[in-house]
Amino acid sequence: MIGRLNHVAIAVRDLDAASATYRGALGAQVSEPQPLPEHGVTVVFINLPNTKIELLEPLGADSPIAKFLERNADGGMHHICYEVDDLIAARDKLKAGGARVLGDGTPKIGAHGKPVLFLHPKDFNGTLVELEQT
Amino acid sequence: MIGRLNHVAIAVRDLDAASATYRGALGAQVSEPQPLPEHGVTVVFINLPNTKIELLEPLGADSPIAKFLERNADGGMHHICYEVDDLIAARDKLKAGGARVLGDGTPKIGAHGKPVLFLHPKDFNGTLVELEQT
Repeated sequence: MIGRLNHVAIAVRDLDAASATYRGALGAQVSEPQPLPEHGVTVVFINLPNTKIELLEPLGADSPIAKFLERNADGGMHHICYEVDDLIAARDKLKAGGARVLGDGTPKIGAHGKPVLFLHPKDFNGTLVELEQT
Repeated sequence: MIGRLNHVAIAVRDLDAASATYRGALGAQVSEPQPLPEHGVTVVFINLPNTKIELLEPLGADSPIAKFLERNADGGMHHICYEVDDLIAARDKLKAGGARVLGDGTPKIGAHGKPVLFLHPKDFNGTLVELEQT
């Protein structure tokens, strides 16, 4: 069911500093910051040859990564995103197997303009899993 | 400097259960468990079209992931591995820039039989970074 690893998201406190680390110390190709107010984050994409890393900084008062950064003062890996061909079929298969889909189970449009859903970390080895329709 | 994302490693308490989740609920291709006593883990590879996930279960008394699992009872993303062409050059550049390389800075042979080094999470947004020579 799952296909490519679309991205790994890393939550950071200071996007400029984190971008400088990836651009400088690690010599990676780093995009300009993109504010996504509807997602409560500003994002920077690190383009690797086979996938990408997304650096996320909280944006606004109700950022979904604010609590994570309270618990992880230095930042850290926040979620992992796998691609699926059919998000609704994937959701229904997962729910039938007892996995918890976050929210009301209705896909939302994610940061890449495609439908996404998130799965409960407790059902996936403590890892927040995003599924993105390709 | 960094090239492909070689893998994301997820530490788990129960490798059989985690493998079953990835094979069953997520429909992924999952390898047989490989005990790596010299690394203190048993590993399962989840082969995705563009990269892989490694599930790590502690093996032996001094597993390097034991403390992580004490802090993260459900498991979680443990490290991320980027490929580099020249590990020694990468190490020297990083050290010159003030980044901390774990251990004595001498590459060890990693789980894939290639030289690896780990970088201090505090210098990389709370993320333990492995560099693997390609």
